Amino acid sequence: MNKICYNPIGVIHSPIKQPKGAPIQPIFAKDIVGKIELFLEYKEGLKDLEGFSHILVIYHFHKAGKSNLIVKPFLDPKPRGVFATRAPARPNAIGISIVRLIKIEENILYVAELDIVDGTPLIDIKPYVPKFDIRKNAKAGWLEKRVEEPITFQDDGRFSIS
Amino acid sequence: MNKICYNPIGVIHSPIKQPKGAPIQPIFAKDIVGKIELFLEYKEGLKDLEGFSHILVIYHFHKAGKSNLIVKPFLDPKPRGVFATRAPARPNAIGISIVRLIKIEENILYVAELDIVDGTPLIDIKPYVPKFDIRKNAKAGWLEKRVEEPITFQDDGRFSIS
Repeated sequence: MNKICYNPIGVIHSPIKQPKGAPIQPIFAKDIVGKIELFLEYKEGLKDLEGFSHILVIYHFHKAGKSNLIVKPFLDPKPRGVFATRAPARPNAIGISIVRLIKIEENILYVAELDIVDGTPLIDIKPYVPKFDIRKNAKAGWLEKRVEEPITFQDDGRFSIS
Repeated sequence: MNKICYNPIGVIHSPIKQPKGAPIQPIFAKDIVGKIELFLEYKEGLKDLEGFSHILVIYHFHKAGKSNLIVKPFLDPKPRGVFATRAPARPNAIGISIVRLIKIEENILYVAELDIVDGTPLIDIKPYVPKFDIRKNAKAGWLEKRVEEPITFQDDGRFSIS
């Protein structure tokens, strides 16, 4: 199959300057605020987004290191298949974060609950829609117990280049 | 910023043969089952995924037509900013579906609640984790009322090439 290429549509500005020490998920980043800069040419596409409290941010893990199919995830000492984890170093280093939208000014989105590293290229923004995105009774496999009492909340740099 | 290129890691096999008539979201596709073929070289990465009831499927809308920044979404007669919609034709035609995982055999994932068109290139698979992915009190802007009594459940082809 052919390669699929995307042009970044913006960039994330964040107080998180490197993967090491970053919160491993937005739910562990309640107080972290930052800005998503959408390149000016796309500004019109933000119309009507401000009514949504949360957005799906889709981005490229630009600091991800070499991917392996078996990884030791942050939340478990046991090696797991990469597709059963949210590890950033994956065959296609694509990330999704659900962040809280504070306000939009021109082409800048002010957001909270941000777990994304500064300088990350933005690929897409979609509205978070509870009716579409919530699966209340979903079972979370090996993560089921691990998310209740996480052994860490922070990235230790294991999946990234320096 | 540089282009970001991904190699498809698999392909989706689905009874939905074209965008026209496809369910517009997995919640409208309860009875649709299909297969996700992960290319053999990535098979090892599926370890431990079978314990999850739902997965995030990330893919390229290969049938999407030209994107516009203002679109008429399926669920509203009013034009909206593309980033405030889930329309497939977007600056980067990347799609996310939360589907139900039935079972995995070798490199094949059997899934239900599938709203993806046959032949779609697969970019990534991530486990759906309620603790990470649910925002119960999220507000859905213009969609808030529209998802309660949808005016349609089906794609009419407006965002696709034939």
